[in-house]
Amino acid sequence: METREILQAVKNGELTIEEATLKLKLEPFEDLGFAKIDHHRALRQNAKEVIYGAGKTGEQILKIVLTMSAHGDDNILITRMDENKSQVVQAGCEEMGIPYFYDGLSHVGIARRQKYNTGNGKIVVVSGGTSDQPVCEEAVLTAETMGNEVVRLYDVGVAGLQRLLSNLEIIMEANVIIAVAGMEGALASVVGGLADCPVIAVPTSVGYGASFLGLSALLSMLNSCASGVSVVNIDNGFGAGFLASRINHMK
Amino acid sequence: METREILQAVKNGELTIEEATLKLKLEPFEDLGFAKIDHHRALRQNAKEVIYGAGKTGEQILKIVLTMSAHGDDNILITRMDENKSQVVQAGCEEMGIPYFYDGLSHVGIARRQKYNTGNGKIVVVSGGTSDQPVCEEAVLTAETMGNEVVRLYDVGVAGLQRLLSNLEIIMEANVIIAVAGMEGALASVVGGLADCPVIAVPTSVGYGASFLGLSALLSMLNSCASGVSVVNIDNGFGAGFLASRINHMK
Amino acid sequence: METREILQAVKNGELTIEEATLKLKLEPFEDLGFAKIDHHRALRQNAKEVIYGAGKTGEQILKIVLTMSAHGDDNILITRMDENKSQVVQAGCEEMGIPYFYDGLSHVGIARRQKYNTGNGKIVVVSGGTSDQPVCEEAVLTAETMGNEVVRLYDVGVAGLQRLLSNLEIIMEANVIIAVAGMEGALASVVGGLADCPVIAVPTSVGYGASFLGLSALLSMLNSCASGVSVVNIDNGFGAGFLASRINHMK
Amino acid sequence: METREILQAVKNGELTIEEATLKLKLEPFEDLGFAKIDHHRALRQNAKEVIYGAGKTGEQILKIVLTMSAHGDDNILITRMDENKSQVVQAGCEEMGIPYFYDGLSHVGIARRQKYNTGNGKIVVVSGGTSDQPVCEEAVLTAETMGNEVVRLYDVGVAGLQRLLSNLEIIMEANVIIAVAGMEGALASVVGGLADCPVIAVPTSVGYGASFLGLSALLSMLNSCASGVSVVNIDNGFGAGFLASRINHMK
Amino acid sequence: METREILQAVKNGELTIEEATLKLKLEPFEDLGFAKIDHHRALRQNAKEVIYGAGKTGEQILKIVLTMSAHGDDNILITRMDENKSQVVQAGCEEMGIPYFYDGLSHVGIARRQKYNTGNGKIVVVSGGTSDQPVCEEAVLTAETMGNEVVRLYDVGVAGLQRLLSNLEIIMEANVIIAVAGMEGALASVVGGLADCPVIAVPTSVGYGASFLGLSALLSMLNSCASGVSVVNIDNGFGAGFLASRINHMK
Amino acid sequence: METREILQAVKNGELTIEEATLKLKLEPFEDLGFAKIDHHRALRQNAKEVIYGAGKTGEQILKIVLTMSAHGDDNILITRMDENKSQVVQAGCEEMGIPYFYDGLSHVGIARRQKYNTGNGKIVVVSGGTSDQPVCEEAVLTAETMGNEVVRLYDVGVAGLQRLLSNLEIIMEANVIIAVAGMEGALASVVGGLADCPVIAVPTSVGYGASFLGLSALLSMLNSCASGVSVVNIDNGFGAGFLASRINHMK
Amino acid sequence: METREILQAVKNGELTIEEATLKLKLEPFEDLGFAKIDHHRALRQNAKEVIYGAGKTGEQILKIVLTMSAHGDDNILITRMDENKSQVVQAGCEEMGIPYFYDGLSHVGIARRQKYNTGNGKIVVVSGGTSDQPVCEEAVLTAETMGNEVVRLYDVGVAGLQRLLSNLEIIMEANVIIAVAGMEGALASVVGGLADCPVIAVPTSVGYGASFLGLSALLSMLNSCASGVSVVNIDNGFGAGFLASRINHMK
Amino acid sequence: METREILQAVKNGELTIEEATLKLKLEPFEDLGFAKIDHHRALRQNAKEVIYGAGKTGEQILKIVLTMSAHGDDNILITRMDENKSQVVQAGCEEMGIPYFYDGLSHVGIARRQKYNTGNGKIVVVSGGTSDQPVCEEAVLTAETMGNEVVRLYDVGVAGLQRLLSNLEIIMEANVIIAVAGMEGALASVVGGLADCPVIAVPTSVGYGASFLGLSALLSMLNSCASGVSVVNIDNGFGAGFLASRINHMK
Repeated sequence: METREILQAVKNGELTIEEATLKLKLEPFEDLGFAKIDHHRALRQNAKEVIYGAGKTGEQILKIVLTMSAHGDDNILITRMDENKSQVVQAGCEEMGIPYFYDGLSHVGIARRQKYNTGNGKIVVVSGGTSDQPVCEEAVLTAETMGNEVVRLYDVGVAGLQRLLSNLEIIMEANVIIAVAGMEGALASVVGGLADCPVIAVPTSVGYGASFLGLSALLSMLNSCASGVSVVNIDNGFGAGFLASRINHMK
Repeated sequence: METREILQAVKNGELTIEEATLKLKLEPFEDLGFAKIDHHRALRQNAKEVIYGAGKTGEQILKIVLTMSAHGDDNILITRMDENKSQVVQAGCEEMGIPYFYDGLSHVGIARRQKYNTGNGKIVVVSGGTSDQPVCEEAVLTAETMGNEVVRLYDVGVAGLQRLLSNLEIIMEANVIIAVAGMEGALASVVGGLADCPVIAVPTSVGYGASFLGLSALLSMLNSCASGVSVVNIDNGFGAGFLASRINHMK
Repeated sequence: METREILQAVKNGELTIEEATLKLKLEPFEDLGFAKIDHHRALRQNAKEVIYGAGKTGEQILKIVLTMSAHGDDNILITRMDENKSQVVQAGCEEMGIPYFYDGLSHVGIARRQKYNTGNGKIVVVSGGTSDQPVCEEAVLTAETMGNEVVRLYDVGVAGLQRLLSNLEIIMEANVIIAVAGMEGALASVVGGLADCPVIAVPTSVGYGASFLGLSALLSMLNSCASGVSVVNIDNGFGAGFLASRINHMK
Repeated sequence: METREILQAVKNGELTIEEATLKLKLEPFEDLGFAKIDHHRALRQNAKEVIYGAGKTGEQILKIVLTMSAHGDDNILITRMDENKSQVVQAGCEEMGIPYFYDGLSHVGIARRQKYNTGNGKIVVVSGGTSDQPVCEEAVLTAETMGNEVVRLYDVGVAGLQRLLSNLEIIMEANVIIAVAGMEGALASVVGGLADCPVIAVPTSVGYGASFLGLSALLSMLNSCASGVSVVNIDNGFGAGFLASRINHMK
Repeated sequence: METREILQAVKNGELTIEEATLKLKLEPFEDLGFAKIDHHRALRQNAKEVIYGAGKTGEQILKIVLTMSAHGDDNILITRMDENKSQVVQAGCEEMGIPYFYDGLSHVGIARRQKYNTGNGKIVVVSGGTSDQPVCEEAVLTAETMGNEVVRLYDVGVAGLQRLLSNLEIIMEANVIIAVAGMEGALASVVGGLADCPVIAVPTSVGYGASFLGLSALLSMLNSCASGVSVVNIDNGFGAGFLASRINHMK
Repeated sequence: METREILQAVKNGELTIEEATLKLKLEPFEDLGFAKIDHHRALRQNAKEVIYGAGKTGEQILKIVLTMSAHGDDNILITRMDENKSQVVQAGCEEMGIPYFYDGLSHVGIARRQKYNTGNGKIVVVSGGTSDQPVCEEAVLTAETMGNEVVRLYDVGVAGLQRLLSNLEIIMEANVIIAVAGMEGALASVVGGLADCPVIAVPTSVGYGASFLGLSALLSMLNSCASGVSVVNIDNGFGAGFLASRINHMK
Repeated sequence: METREILQAVKNGELTIEEATLKLKLEPFEDLGFAKIDHHRALRQNAKEVIYGAGKTGEQILKIVLTMSAHGDDNILITRMDENKSQVVQAGCEEMGIPYFYDGLSHVGIARRQKYNTGNGKIVVVSGGTSDQPVCEEAVLTAETMGNEVVRLYDVGVAGLQRLLSNLEIIMEANVIIAVAGMEGALASVVGGLADCPVIAVPTSVGYGASFLGLSALLSMLNSCASGVSVVNIDNGFGAGFLASRINHMK
Repeated sequence: METREILQAVKNGELTIEEATLKLKLEPFEDLGFAKIDHHRALRQNAKEVIYGAGKTGEQILKIVLTMSAHGDDNILITRMDENKSQVVQAGCEEMGIPYFYDGLSHVGIARRQKYNTGNGKIVVVSGGTSDQPVCEEAVLTAETMGNEVVRLYDVGVAGLQRLLSNLEIIMEANVIIAVAGMEGALASVVGGLADCPVIAVPTSVGYGASFLGLSALLSMLNSCASGVSVVNIDNGFGAGFLASRINHMK
């Protein structure tokens, strides 16, 4: 019930002033447009809410999944959930007849997964080495769950430019690019120089020694931001997938 | 001359094999579609090339400006150019009858400035304090030069939520938001939670003590990337404006 | 025995000069008022001494608990004690008929727990995410043990301002607020802007990537200290609870 | 105008639904008690607003001072204002007959200064060396401006415990202590161990070499937070004075 | 097929223009000399490709080894492969009759190992302590696999100059030196001062406390670069061995 | 044989020029006094060589111990040796009838331990908390093994000055003090202010949060060096004990 | 007046209990032996108090110098005093007929300088490069002022071992060594390995790039502490000279 | 005079034993082969000694130059000498008729400059931006002074791969490459992937924000060391030029 309707109801005598005051007090944010935002969001982004699995038990995750499923949500996304927790969720879903998918590499689970494509173009996930794949896949599955066509372009590190350049067409046709790299993070700069779409750089904690858990890649990527590149947190594949989807759904 | 044409010319005997080999060797990247990219870019982004003034003398900047102007470019953007250099450029431009604009706050100069709007929506630049204004204005002028309508929403820091919330409408209507903040950088998180468009966070070196020249704001912003927020380099107003324009011109 | 009494005893011949010299030498700080401080403290703060469990064995902890209990202390607080050590303490307490409580989440144990309220107002513990709960509960149990009414306001992160704002009344009525947050730590700034009581910020090591084990939240919180916010060590729930209690018991 | 009144006015036909909707939209936070907060604050804290001089010109500062003065405010506090700016403000104040005070050491200015004491007890500012004095004085002047009695206890570093211990009485009688120290910051720990009131630690950037612009003192102080000590930003004398005043005015 | 040949074929009518365009598009880098580089490399460096074992399963490594072996490669080098993975590779190699060698200290595996020496001189690996040996051996095995004679000079730390100086002859005769050291990394400076050949410094993560996982040695080594010393990543024995081999094979 | 003697022998024809050249080449450092240094050292310092156990297997340690024992050494010191390795050494020593001592707390082993005192005065090891004890004991056992009388003064942290001050006599009588502290490291400053003998500060990695593995204590201690305090590496109890012994044996 | 005397006086009726209580209260630390300590110190160390010039004006320094001179002190040491301040002090001293010495390199001033030698042996100050000289001289002048014979051994960096080794005798005869080095700080390790007396390492901020204002040298030196080396703060020549003097005056 | 000759002379009675002892004592390192090294060095490297101008006055530099010139040295190289110092040197050289060259960009001076080429191949200096030129030129002039042919390849940053790739031939023909880059330092990785000669990476302090004075480029470069790339200190153009020359003169 919107502010305007409450007011109308007061005017019509359908609501007493006390009832109306209470109504406004209990749902103060409808007044602020918040509810509308949330409504909007759900419609456009196709992701009700995302479950961050790291700080929760398998049972807690399952409970949220079942509640969301009962509300009719599909593409229920769970990130950073290890194998053990996933087994709890899987068992519970199976019992309730809820389809469930788990990717052991990226630790991403999806209940009631449904593939569809509502984006404007393709999202390309580029990465330099096989070790970055868990982060890449987190980005891929996040973006897919939110209704995007995603193209994987893995193992095209800057130390072997040929592989990258021989896939130039894929890069040129992308609507949004997610560049995932650990170690020196130079991939973001090179891709940023080739592409003319927004590039989201994801530093990874892959590496050793002076990579300092991703700090090297992070700094490197931040320093090449001049040409359409921006950066998300180290290993934050989800954040990159989410933002890429948002950009890919712009009107 | 394209690959296909060169081949045709060889077939027709208009080019010897030696000439054709040389041609392909000298312009190898036409083959790769590079030239086309550059052509594309210019058309879409309306920014021929941006002059980074920090490492150049006034005379060097002037020379580039005159050359670009002679090629018919307008909206020639120069960033990080101090007052002294600008005076050299201004004098040179005046002599040649080239309109010239300089903003002393952001150290941005624009030759042959022309306002126009080819973007899909509005870019909103949000900032927490007056001290962040130089970075904000660099973002604003960059985005404007590239054909965007930009709305300024300054001095809406998170320590006084009222000011921010009473401008909620502006945030809700934005197509892209640039959130500029020094100190603790919380603004990006709060704005990121309110908006449902891409948010580009720009940490600034404003602050003292444990702000460590922008490191505090940078880390803070990176850690809130989960909900559609990405980050550019500290004080990189230009980078944010450039990326915002790119997103605002997506098809 | 106080200085004045010793002197009187010397004058009266009840103490030889040698005895008096020794007395003053052995208890030099009675002279300085230290003993009185300690006496005072115990009365006011209701926490004889707190046992830091991390560097001690279960047996060592148990021994201290039994000694304190024998002296009639109640609300004997043990922090940072893992489950295994707690079992040792629990078994020993049960054998001696001493009531014992252990919270597995925050790793806090309390022997001879007694709830009471001697504070001036309410302490509110605010937190952004469920993962911060262990630190929150350490703060809550510490403050409760020292005689405070504590209100929990969890899961009100700045990325969803609605939840925070709809609990504004709780924040407005607080006498002291403890703001617990990992990641970007923006919660402290936002709460600090809303409240007009002292806010104690506790950065947590929750997060990943560029949160750098709590450094990001720590720096962020330090940079918002302008408006009544001060900071304790990363994950230091105990310290926050202790200080909050001290402030809440001021006369 | 409160929600209930707006509803009554709608019922009475004194407001159209459109007018009422706008009213609720334009002043959404009145509903949440914001206005009351601000009102409250002014009454209790006796500091209308504080002017941060670092990012403003002398003229801008003067203008704010004159406006506040015209509204009848006294004790108008300006921090981080260098000598040159102060001269502009002073000249302007003199012209308008407004009493003006400036402390060159701490770079604090106060217009229409009025000494009064509404606090519960004394605030003691303790410091280890003469070089910390600018930060100390910022704290002192801030606290005094907000209606506190402040006691200075300078040059009592931990390397000479005698001086500190011979002033034990002052420390014992304090209601709030502000401990200011650069270099190793041990003062906060020692004072925290002696006092039984809240201690606000202010690390300063005084020092050289491995003091790393205050980082050493900051870390040191954070690590002694267990016993009633909390920390504000490096060199943040204002923040410490503000918080101390808030604690000293608690009911 | 080279550009010139394609052109000839077009001229001769052996290729249609469409076929030729496709050919040039599909193999653009042959045009740039890339293929020749790769060919060159293999011939000169005697290391087809190196397998970085850290991010791969034993099965994946085995598969690559078998493929390379089937192409006739020998000296197939695998680095950073733990014991468990090695057992998988060993079993698979044995089954196929492929000779296999594994060094448990450095975690280096070599399939179809063949000792030979095509270098110009000797590579000397100098180290300060026994704990650095895993990194040393990674360098030694890498260099040997690439056709170098390698001399080990271990346990000659700078705190006991005698041992180092009594082996001066070995240092004087080296063609390239690899200096491996953790802790304070002073070895690189001392060796750099004695030798007149290129010195490659490898900081190791060996140490504790303020060695900060190799940072101390890294910074130390970078700061002595003036006299012919350069540095590779912390613990990067492979990189040092590879570069030393490259220098030792220069013409 | 000294240079002069070699020359004499050449002159006398007792040595051919070839023999003399070889002699000078093989023993170059006898000329420089090195051998004498080593001889000296053993006599004065009573520590033949110390075995750093961290990078060695139990078997390797045992072998060195047996060799040294066979050379008649006693007080053979092994540091950083975990329980498992110690059991290997113990078994081997028992078999050979060599007395063996192991301290599980500090991970120090001593074969053929013999207590004696050749120092000038007492070494006092001061520490703030029980958790620092492993580092303290490493210092104590090192110093004792090298012939010093060592006094333990534990658990006298600066947050409870009374305990420290009531043991002032011990501090005043020390010849060298080793101050061990984690967290904020203030102990070194306070002790340095009280004592007038050299103070060796040992930061420990004890603590959590912003203690950053000992960095906080390290920086704190470095910043109080003005008054006779110097610092060794984090957790380096051995280094402190060794240096204290050296100072305590000065003539 | 000692405790025992006060008690006697009370017994004798020469002091009332009130007088005695006050006496004990006002001079509590006489009881603890503090006064004796201070007396002791002056006698043994021959340095009344040292004036840290950095945070004081020339006038303030002069005033302290005159006061100390009036009390009959000689060898009044002032550190970190720039040329301008020194001129003020010099003028004032000349007026009063006080001999005054200033070293422009190290910024050290000495009033009423008197050379004498009460130490046990020689202090040797070793340094690697000419740029470290200001720090070296601060150490030299401090130690000389406190009654030590100091030997300078400059420009003996580890990159040219010859110079260092050809001065081996000086190093072998030292009673205490101060090793001053910037850049990689390896000098401390090499000297520590050669000498068998205490070595005090002083990292300097000399260098560029990855020397990070002395951090590189500091870490390097801390990591070689195993063999009798300890470290003071970056650029802290005074601290090293003071400690060296203390060690050189041990009984 | 060599050891063998001294012995012969003793035998022949041409030298007394005392004379011979002195000779060996004064030049002890001739014995160790040091002198030969130094002799060798001079012959091969054609750089007697390099003058580091930063820590010296113009007069001191001039004096060294004149002394070296008097010994017949040419190509006397002075680095890090600002304009003012250079003018002093220039005046002095002119007076003595010594040819003198100064490059204001790189702050490099060369007295008695003589171009010649004794290297095996070409050294190529690659850089990404014009701001890196001072560091580049320091490398170029250093290498030229030491007898190398140097090719400049500037302004070929990775954000515009075309420029880099169209100069592929220069990179392929290099004998040693020096890759100079600030900001994200990706150039070293890309060049390292293309070239098959040793690549020396020089991070520069060019950049702003999160480039942290070259740290970003440094870490980035260290993390790409796997393929023949090693790193020297930030801004260390001299070190890179020196090492490149050494490699280019290998036999």
